Amino acid sequence: MNKKFKLEEYIEIINNYIDKAVPECFFGEDIVHQAMKYSLSVGGKRIRPVLTLEFCRLCGGDINKALPFAVAAEMIHTYSLIHDDLPCMDDDDMRRGMPSCHIKFGEEYALLAGDALLTRAFGVLTESEASPEAVVKAVSLLSELSGVSGMIGGQVVDLKNEDKPCTIEVLETMDSLKTGALIKCASLLGVIVAGGNAQQYEAARCFSENLGHAFQIVDDILDVIGDEKELGKPIGSDRESGKSTYVSVLGLEKSQQYAKDITAKAIEALSIFGDDADFLKELAEKLINRKN
Amino acid sequence: MNKKFKLEEYIEIINNYIDKAVPECFFGEDIVHQAMKYSLSVGGKRIRPVLTLEFCRLCGGDINKALPFAVAAEMIHTYSLIHDDLPCMDDDDMRRGMPSCHIKFGEEYALLAGDALLTRAFGVLTESEASPEAVVKAVSLLSELSGVSGMIGGQVVDLKNEDKPCTIEVLETMDSLKTGALIKCASLLGVIVAGGNAQQYEAARCFSENLGHAFQIVDDILDVIGDEKELGKPIGSDRESGKSTYVSVLGLEKSQQYAKDITAKAIEALSIFGDDADFLKELAEKLINRKN
Repeated sequence: MNKKFKLEEYIEIINNYIDKAVPECFFGEDIVHQAMKYSLSVGGKRIRPVLTLEFCRLCGGDINKALPFAVAAEMIHTYSLIHDDLPCMDDDDMRRGMPSCHIKFGEEYALLAGDALLTRAFGVLTESEASPEAVVKAVSLLSELSGVSGMIGGQVVDLKNEDKPCTIEVLETMDSLKTGALIKCASLLGVIVAGGNAQQYEAARCFSENLGHAFQIVDDILDVIGDEKELGKPIGSDRESGKSTYVSVLGLEKSQQYAKDITAKAIEALSIFGDDADFLKELAEKLINRKN
Repeated sequence: MNKKFKLEEYIEIINNYIDKAVPECFFGEDIVHQAMKYSLSVGGKRIRPVLTLEFCRLCGGDINKALPFAVAAEMIHTYSLIHDDLPCMDDDDMRRGMPSCHIKFGEEYALLAGDALLTRAFGVLTESEASPEAVVKAVSLLSELSGVSGMIGGQVVDLKNEDKPCTIEVLETMDSLKTGALIKCASLLGVIVAGGNAQQYEAARCFSENLGHAFQIVDDILDVIGDEKELGKPIGSDRESGKSTYVSVLGLEKSQQYAKDITAKAIEALSIFGDDADFLKELAEKLINRKN
């Protein structure tokens, strides 16, 4: 059995790697370098890269080989937040209690910083010492699940249904793409880098799909009953914008129960790993009880 | 010696592949799919993918394996044009005589279509039947030369020097990154997929760097003496915006001579290929004498 890590240990390893993985400044573009670093550093929970590392460990892989995969997923996540906050998208001035990238650096540099993070993510994948076959698989999966069949697809469904009520089916499709796809991708990258078997791949898929789903339901709940200071953004923003959420469609109590049921399903999927999956079980419980 | 192709044959092969390479619509995001196809189809000269295919052929490779690499470079080029035209960047309503992507589809969908093309480009690379080692090299090179050390770096230098005169050195740095890096990348991808040797790699580098440079000088010349109808955009836009160009820095005649000298250098770099490089020599001559 591989050495186990604590959440704080993982986060430290990830942050150290991120620090080195943002490409050096070139003539004149230090502002984009700064913008990339800024957005990568402001208060992310690092859930995606932690999932990559822990699934790699669970499948008997070397987490040093998994680190570039982990950080690539975090870069994709970060670029999507930068572009999502732009005036032509959600037009959000704040992100995690800090000015959004375009407020701090200007819209044009925020656009380029997002592009640069997206571009760099794929370069980082190739810096893993995993086999070329595993790297190619990783590039293919990350492109698929962060593209129109995944995250970007979810953003389009979101735009199409903005400011109007939608059904639970649309809501679930949107979330499974917009948030779920990348959480799933990060988990599967861990299995890929470790050369995990089909059963392990399936367990990671089932766990991460349910975790991503529960995560989004809790997000909607926090927008209603959360604390603005802990959240780092104003609450009630979903209701104000007329956006459908799990709470507006199912009600608060049913949403809370739904999130619990799905989290239980996620945890069940880990049974093949036995006690070795305690870290992920705790992480799932923590995410459902989180305050921000 | 591999079968030779005509320019029109290459372009047909490329366009057929592009048609299949844009991912299928998913629930609701057909508008992004349409926007991706639209921008990929409006009047591109396909210089980059042609370079990939021809360098692959020259190095004895299989152009079917090179096609995904060729199209990936074209997708990166197209995404950069979409994002460059956005209001927060150059704010251009027209591109190649047609409405820009954001004019046709809206800013939010143009942003996402650009992101989706950039994301898909790396996925397309993995669909080549080249060796996993070659694919990994290709991902790494494309990420580097289209990121902050390449194309995006050039865009930042451009933004920083907007609306003010700059020296010839700044101009050359900017162009070698903004336009040159991707033209070089496309050429090198052809050598990589064919498993070319160091001498061939060096020839492709030298040819494409000089070709990209000459290409940009001719662009600046056409902005002064070109025909609006053939160009598909108004002439004199550089002077109006106060932007430095080769013509404003060197004068028209010296710029024309400079473009000729550099083209000669590019052609010289092909000497190791002998007569088999006639296609590329003609392409270089054609680009320097082009009207749009």
